[in-house]
Amino acid sequence: MKENKFAPVTGTMMPRYAGVATLMRLPYMALTDNGIGDVDIGLIGVPWDGGTTNRPGARHGPRQVRDISTMVRNVNRSSNINPFELCNCADLGDAPVNPVDLIDSLNRIAGFYDEVCRLGIAPLSVGGDHLVTLPIMRGLAKDRPIGMVHFDAHTDTWNRYFGDNAYTHGTPFRRAIEEGLLDPKRTVQIGIRGALYNDSENDWGERQGIRVIDIDEFHAMGIEAVIQEARRVVGDGPTYVTFDVDALDPVFAPGTGTPEIGGLTTLEAQHLIRGLQGLNLVGGDVVEVSPPFDPSGNTALVGATLMFEILCVLAESVRRRKHR
Amino acid sequence: MKENKFAPVTGTMMPRYAGVATLMRLPYMALTDNGIGDVDIGLIGVPWDGGTTNRPGARHGPRQVRDISTMVRNVNRSSNINPFELCNCADLGDAPVNPVDLIDSLNRIAGFYDEVCRLGIAPLSVGGDHLVTLPIMRGLAKDRPIGMVHFDAHTDTWNRYFGDNAYTHGTPFRRAIEEGLLDPKRTVQIGIRGALYNDSENDWGERQGIRVIDIDEFHAMGIEAVIQEARRVVGDGPTYVTFDVDALDPVFAPGTGTPEIGGLTTLEAQHLIRGLQGLNLVGGDVVEVSPPFDPSGNTALVGATLMFEILCVLAESVRRRKHR
Amino acid sequence: MKENKFAPVTGTMMPRYAGVATLMRLPYMALTDNGIGDVDIGLIGVPWDGGTTNRPGARHGPRQVRDISTMVRNVNRSSNINPFELCNCADLGDAPVNPVDLIDSLNRIAGFYDEVCRLGIAPLSVGGDHLVTLPIMRGLAKDRPIGMVHFDAHTDTWNRYFGDNAYTHGTPFRRAIEEGLLDPKRTVQIGIRGALYNDSENDWGERQGIRVIDIDEFHAMGIEAVIQEARRVVGDGPTYVTFDVDALDPVFAPGTGTPEIGGLTTLEAQHLIRGLQGLNLVGGDVVEVSPPFDPSGNTALVGATLMFEILCVLAESVRRRKHR
Amino acid sequence: MKENKFAPVTGTMMPRYAGVATLMRLPYMALTDNGIGDVDIGLIGVPWDGGTTNRPGARHGPRQVRDISTMVRNVNRSSNINPFELCNCADLGDAPVNPVDLIDSLNRIAGFYDEVCRLGIAPLSVGGDHLVTLPIMRGLAKDRPIGMVHFDAHTDTWNRYFGDNAYTHGTPFRRAIEEGLLDPKRTVQIGIRGALYNDSENDWGERQGIRVIDIDEFHAMGIEAVIQEARRVVGDGPTYVTFDVDALDPVFAPGTGTPEIGGLTTLEAQHLIRGLQGLNLVGGDVVEVSPPFDPSGNTALVGATLMFEILCVLAESVRRRKHR
Amino acid sequence: MKENKFAPVTGTMMPRYAGVATLMRLPYMALTDNGIGDVDIGLIGVPWDGGTTNRPGARHGPRQVRDISTMVRNVNRSSNINPFELCNCADLGDAPVNPVDLIDSLNRIAGFYDEVCRLGIAPLSVGGDHLVTLPIMRGLAKDRPIGMVHFDAHTDTWNRYFGDNAYTHGTPFRRAIEEGLLDPKRTVQIGIRGALYNDSENDWGERQGIRVIDIDEFHAMGIEAVIQEARRVVGDGPTYVTFDVDALDPVFAPGTGTPEIGGLTTLEAQHLIRGLQGLNLVGGDVVEVSPPFDPSGNTALVGATLMFEILCVLAESVRRRKHR
Amino acid sequence: MKENKFAPVTGTMMPRYAGVATLMRLPYMALTDNGIGDVDIGLIGVPWDGGTTNRPGARHGPRQVRDISTMVRNVNRSSNINPFELCNCADLGDAPVNPVDLIDSLNRIAGFYDEVCRLGIAPLSVGGDHLVTLPIMRGLAKDRPIGMVHFDAHTDTWNRYFGDNAYTHGTPFRRAIEEGLLDPKRTVQIGIRGALYNDSENDWGERQGIRVIDIDEFHAMGIEAVIQEARRVVGDGPTYVTFDVDALDPVFAPGTGTPEIGGLTTLEAQHLIRGLQGLNLVGGDVVEVSPPFDPSGNTALVGATLMFEILCVLAESVRRRKHR
Repeated sequence: MKENKFAPVTGTMMPRYAGVATLMRLPYMALTDNGIGDVDIGLIGVPWDGGTTNRPGARHGPRQVRDISTMVRNVNRSSNINPFELCNCADLGDAPVNPVDLIDSLNRIAGFYDEVCRLGIAPLSVGGDHLVTLPIMRGLAKDRPIGMVHFDAHTDTWNRYFGDNAYTHGTPFRRAIEEGLLDPKRTVQIGIRGALYNDSENDWGERQGIRVIDIDEFHAMGIEAVIQEARRVVGDGPTYVTFDVDALDPVFAPGTGTPEIGGLTTLEAQHLIRGLQGLNLVGGDVVEVSPPFDPSGNTALVGATLMFEILCVLAESVRRRKHR
Repeated sequence: MKENKFAPVTGTMMPRYAGVATLMRLPYMALTDNGIGDVDIGLIGVPWDGGTTNRPGARHGPRQVRDISTMVRNVNRSSNINPFELCNCADLGDAPVNPVDLIDSLNRIAGFYDEVCRLGIAPLSVGGDHLVTLPIMRGLAKDRPIGMVHFDAHTDTWNRYFGDNAYTHGTPFRRAIEEGLLDPKRTVQIGIRGALYNDSENDWGERQGIRVIDIDEFHAMGIEAVIQEARRVVGDGPTYVTFDVDALDPVFAPGTGTPEIGGLTTLEAQHLIRGLQGLNLVGGDVVEVSPPFDPSGNTALVGATLMFEILCVLAESVRRRKHR
Repeated sequence: MKENKFAPVTGTMMPRYAGVATLMRLPYMALTDNGIGDVDIGLIGVPWDGGTTNRPGARHGPRQVRDISTMVRNVNRSSNINPFELCNCADLGDAPVNPVDLIDSLNRIAGFYDEVCRLGIAPLSVGGDHLVTLPIMRGLAKDRPIGMVHFDAHTDTWNRYFGDNAYTHGTPFRRAIEEGLLDPKRTVQIGIRGALYNDSENDWGERQGIRVIDIDEFHAMGIEAVIQEARRVVGDGPTYVTFDVDALDPVFAPGTGTPEIGGLTTLEAQHLIRGLQGLNLVGGDVVEVSPPFDPSGNTALVGATLMFEILCVLAESVRRRKHR
Repeated sequence: MKENKFAPVTGTMMPRYAGVATLMRLPYMALTDNGIGDVDIGLIGVPWDGGTTNRPGARHGPRQVRDISTMVRNVNRSSNINPFELCNCADLGDAPVNPVDLIDSLNRIAGFYDEVCRLGIAPLSVGGDHLVTLPIMRGLAKDRPIGMVHFDAHTDTWNRYFGDNAYTHGTPFRRAIEEGLLDPKRTVQIGIRGALYNDSENDWGERQGIRVIDIDEFHAMGIEAVIQEARRVVGDGPTYVTFDVDALDPVFAPGTGTPEIGGLTTLEAQHLIRGLQGLNLVGGDVVEVSPPFDPSGNTALVGATLMFEILCVLAESVRRRKHR
Repeated sequence: MKENKFAPVTGTMMPRYAGVATLMRLPYMALTDNGIGDVDIGLIGVPWDGGTTNRPGARHGPRQVRDISTMVRNVNRSSNINPFELCNCADLGDAPVNPVDLIDSLNRIAGFYDEVCRLGIAPLSVGGDHLVTLPIMRGLAKDRPIGMVHFDAHTDTWNRYFGDNAYTHGTPFRRAIEEGLLDPKRTVQIGIRGALYNDSENDWGERQGIRVIDIDEFHAMGIEAVIQEARRVVGDGPTYVTFDVDALDPVFAPGTGTPEIGGLTTLEAQHLIRGLQGLNLVGGDVVEVSPPFDPSGNTALVGATLMFEILCVLAESVRRRKHR
Repeated sequence: MKENKFAPVTGTMMPRYAGVATLMRLPYMALTDNGIGDVDIGLIGVPWDGGTTNRPGARHGPRQVRDISTMVRNVNRSSNINPFELCNCADLGDAPVNPVDLIDSLNRIAGFYDEVCRLGIAPLSVGGDHLVTLPIMRGLAKDRPIGMVHFDAHTDTWNRYFGDNAYTHGTPFRRAIEEGLLDPKRTVQIGIRGALYNDSENDWGERQGIRVIDIDEFHAMGIEAVIQEARRVVGDGPTYVTFDVDALDPVFAPGTGTPEIGGLTTLEAQHLIRGLQGLNLVGGDVVEVSPPFDPSGNTALVGATLMFEILCVLAESVRRRKHR
């Protein structure tokens, strides 16, 4: 049985809008704090958008998600999972970043996640733009390539930008595959859509073996078949879940840098994530929440709630591994 | 045939954005005005959110719904009902409230609805937070418990808050059942979702006999089956309709205090309400419209349009009773 | 093979947010410029809302759509159409208008489109309120009536307003039919909904032979059947596509003058437009984008993306005619 | 002593945000109501912006000013004037307008004010764009030209627009002078600024005798000298006060169609209006409040408060005339 | 010399937008934490607006001020004071509150401040509505009445509301005087303005000896004379500083419940607070920051910066007392 | 006499909100276009914010300023300067940038301005963050150091960031002095304010000879003395004007990355810029307009109007040099 100190502060004692805002009202712990070894799952912000080629702002995502995540409660009504009963969870603060230096930022972030993994903590992160998943994987997958369930409007497997720039929020998974961090044959991308620059841009990933389920195929298959296909692709190897909020239709997530109409609903997203229960999950993230482009704040609410959905399946997986 | 004076001012003579804003452009009448006895259905605001435990603002709901309700027209295209032909409708203004005194507010509101009922007027209200439904029922159901069709993300049947507070917008229906105002066996709750504080919090209502159709069951059953089940539960006894706008997904109703993603669409809500035609309806309300949290104003438009949908089925019921 | 100069500037060389904003980053050309004769399809703004009876602002639509349309890319992922390969496309700027004179505006706009058609350019326009479609048709259909696929919440076939005003954004298609510009028997209206002023107001159009598919019938038929019915109605004669963004649910397009809840999703809209491929299309428009009522800017993104969808089917049609 | 029924409802009995919103919480009366003869000062909305050449939206001004004016209280702390003790005040609703017909609107508005004046009621209006002051003057000044204290960034004495349009919100006072409604020699314009189209555009008014105090002269003279100069210009003849909110710096009044930076502060505006006490005032207005361009609503608060300031000096003048 | 651990995290190492947001990036400490005895000044939120009679939302003030206060730096450029060198400062979190129970909230807050004072910590708080200053004073002034420098648009010395309610955000200082917490003869109120309900409402406070400097007298005296007068009134006894952001003009602080135009500028406010240097200050607060009414967030920036200004003069005073 | 083609399109022929938006409605010309040699002053956007350490968004400044600058007119009412009569002005589009590569961006921008200067065009730019002024100076001042009138809340003469980053928007003028582009002895900084990280951070610039007039000294001196001091400092050598909008109080320019309360008013800014008439000006810019942080758009209006003010004094200077 988990200890009380790693549970969220309840809203019937301290109102949800009150207090210093941590992710899901969990205790804040630095990597150097006493007791860090008790943490099973670390919730982490990566406040950086230096890989963004169009509209910046995702660096502000962690702050706003912390704020709104104080509305999250404990038990998933659909799956009955209470992640805080299954695992010790804490807010580990933000990974270090450098807003004016891309390469330095990738190194700082990778170093932080390297230490998180060394401590045996499974990371659940909130971005930041999608390039942050690359240094997270550098920390998380340095021993062997991992599989991935990837929700997004874009494949993020482009090669170069502006002539010779290898690192942007459009390239992380090409780099991850090249670096041996990500196994393309155990990777599935769901929700891909939007116009293309040219007919062949999307080929590289599929040629490596990525299973791309674009929005048309998603609707043709139906949600249950998509879940089964995703489970088949990643199998029972270690698997990461990454959720770019632009996978959702912009009405659900206007606060993002590259919105594309015609996307997933939040209800579909919740079902898809719940469908990952029982997989061998090693971490996850929600990225591209960009508060400056969302006057209503709903994107952050969506991001926080999807983090909770991922937390539920991740906690179940972490707990299972611990008691194996 | 109803008199002209109780019909909305038409938009082809006075533009919809012009004039003093009353609910659906109906004439304003005080309870003490001559001719109040001719009114069949009273549209009423309850500008109070003193039961709100998180984000306040629903006290401003009636004002903004009055404004935007001037865009409502006369005939329901789907059902062909023109409520203004069936019943004499008027805006009765706002119920009296006290923003700094919870108990005093409950008493003032109950007194107002007591008088409304004494005058033989069926009330259709706009809140206000959901606690306002309790004093409305104290006025409306003092003779016998009534049934209820309840649209909401939350069951609102919690018991105590902050140690010993019995009255919040999370407790109205527990109190109503305890006070004998609401018959739990003739109550159905639709759209319930969102994480829970603990596994057992939702049990009380179901143990009393409330039929809870949460969002997963809603989608599993399909909308027609849900309508039939709701009709079966409430039967032909006197029935109240309460619509908390957080039953809707937050993209449709961002202006509310406790949004939960993955909710109903407005189209589903319209179909559900239309499905209540023919029941023995005695009143209804739309609550938790909170303008400060909605920069676009769409929540108020949704609230006003759902009021019109409820008005259509309510007017049909009131008319039927009068000519029985 | 089309010339490069008529292609959008690519976002991997100039960031999408940079540069002078033209529609889809196409070259701007005036009707009097050298080389205008090479243009196949002209993208045109009509910044005018003088026919608006309720909330103005659509005059600002073209400016904001130009801004956000710089996020559009080249190839339709679903249909594989690259319109810029099929046709020479250019931004022809805004049609001339007079914000304080309705009749003068109709004349100026009609004159502009008359010249566009004389130059053999197929127009794809962005309004402006829906009355602008009337002068567009005066330029486009003066030789023979055309058919129309019309997406809207409203039929826009009213007769008079405020006693004796014949021209408002609620009357364009009644006038177009009366003027012999529009063939009602080859006209289909999709997405109609919202309450009516009275039971008979909607009759005129249907009596002329318009096929009205309201939102209830739309859902009853299913999207594929609706597409087939629309294709059957317009046949292979010259056909215009007009998309009023209030056909969409207000959550997708809050920035519009007369929102009605319970509307189409953008995904449905995309499928519907793609379903028009192969028809004999002569032009199209997207109207009623009203930026002042949309704090998030999503309406303009939707408008720009739907323009791209129409452009794809229009370009395919124009190309086919040219090579016939 | 005035009757109670014409006093605002107090905020210590009904909260300021509650109830049907009328101007300053005064009773609403139609021109045809019994007892209309008791009204001394009529507060009136003119919801029309058909003369606007750039950004529309002022038609929504009266509705939003009604809403926010419920925050106004009774006694002017600086002057100790309680206008509701001095005069019987009522909200007379909105003047009739036609949003798609400029000339028809001018006629409808003039007819309404003609009747107001015939009833012996002094009008205090809220626009609407500045062209509405012309038909107000047609009702108010048909017997003899009146003087005017005019606060504005622009002189509004242009001649023609778009070739041949005589009526826009840039021309009302040229027309009023030509029609003999306004005495240019008894007219003072304060706050004029902003760049010009050409060097001579501003000459016409001054050639007629208007005293123009532009923003530079305003600051050079100091506020007391400006007040004295304004009083000297209008003398003791019948005088109208018109306040275009763009006289203020846009930070105070962002919700307006033609903002110009470097304007008056609200504090300066309050002092200027208070400086008119004792003049022979016959009416006034606040115009160009355009809610769609003000996300914060402050413009309406400013407009409502300046209406109250004008009401204080107007009431004092009306009372004085009545008891002369 | 103060210890490093009580200094803000520098923005050149961790970007200002990153990390868990505490007030001025100070360490968070609970009252029960080890080392609490080292704290000289405690920054505290009071997230409660249950005394608000009009527009609620100030309960969200502490959260947003925490967020934006991460932009504050260390050294006051004007006074050269570095408060973090002078005193050990920490964020003590939020005082306990109960959003549905006014009396319970007053008791919880008072208890918290009682403990803060018992620990020898000088409190600098952020509200919350102005009623929160009453329980703060119950903790802070239970031994003897204190003096007060009070910036506000309103005197907040009303008596009863809605018949018999003694506690609202309009009554705290009447109650504080009655309870012997506040010495009216050592109280000065600056910035008072706005219309009154009646001529005599403002008398009570002045009759008790409060020195009221309304906005007209403020401008007549000039800022230096006002400072001298304020210093004269409070003398060298223990003094509290309370800053209601509605003392400022609403353009500087739109996010507040009861805005009144014609108020102070932030520059004036900064000078006024700096003018308090050398007084015997025992605590202070900034209240009525209401984020839902401020789409730009400037009110919170103003609130955070004014907290820093008060912190500078408070730290200087606390330090002086410690070394006396 | 200048040619007509370089004048803004007039708003009495094409409404201000219509047409493709170029800076001040001037013709767009690429550096490679025929006729570029006729241009005297080039208006240029630099859409880049890669030097921003806190809140990004200034990359969107040029687009929004283009939009709102269509409201600018021709003749400065105060100085009577019509810049379009004095010089040929054109919109030269945006300088090339790379959003994911800081050094590459500096090189691209410098190359562009090098070419602009080679063509004999005086540049008037709109940023972008303040680091863009460095590469502008690399193009503009490569032959000899220039003087500068610098309006800002910050000195922007810091040294390193995040350990070892030499280029941020806080360092441009330290680098420019080090590179011999900027003569510190002919540099004046006006409006400096806000808290400091430590007491000595501001020393470097003053030690180089920069004349710093902080906000307190600004108010102590008075605006006329500040103008004279600025003129004395820069003398008659070639001088650049740079206006960071955070020099203004945040109420005038909320849309900026690092707002500091207590700043300049726009009126003061206008007077200060007008006071530069007659200097030997070689270029200027307005920077740090960040649209995502300004829901009202006023910052862009302010930015566009101040560009016009700078254009007036720059055009007068350019004309004078040409006719010397």
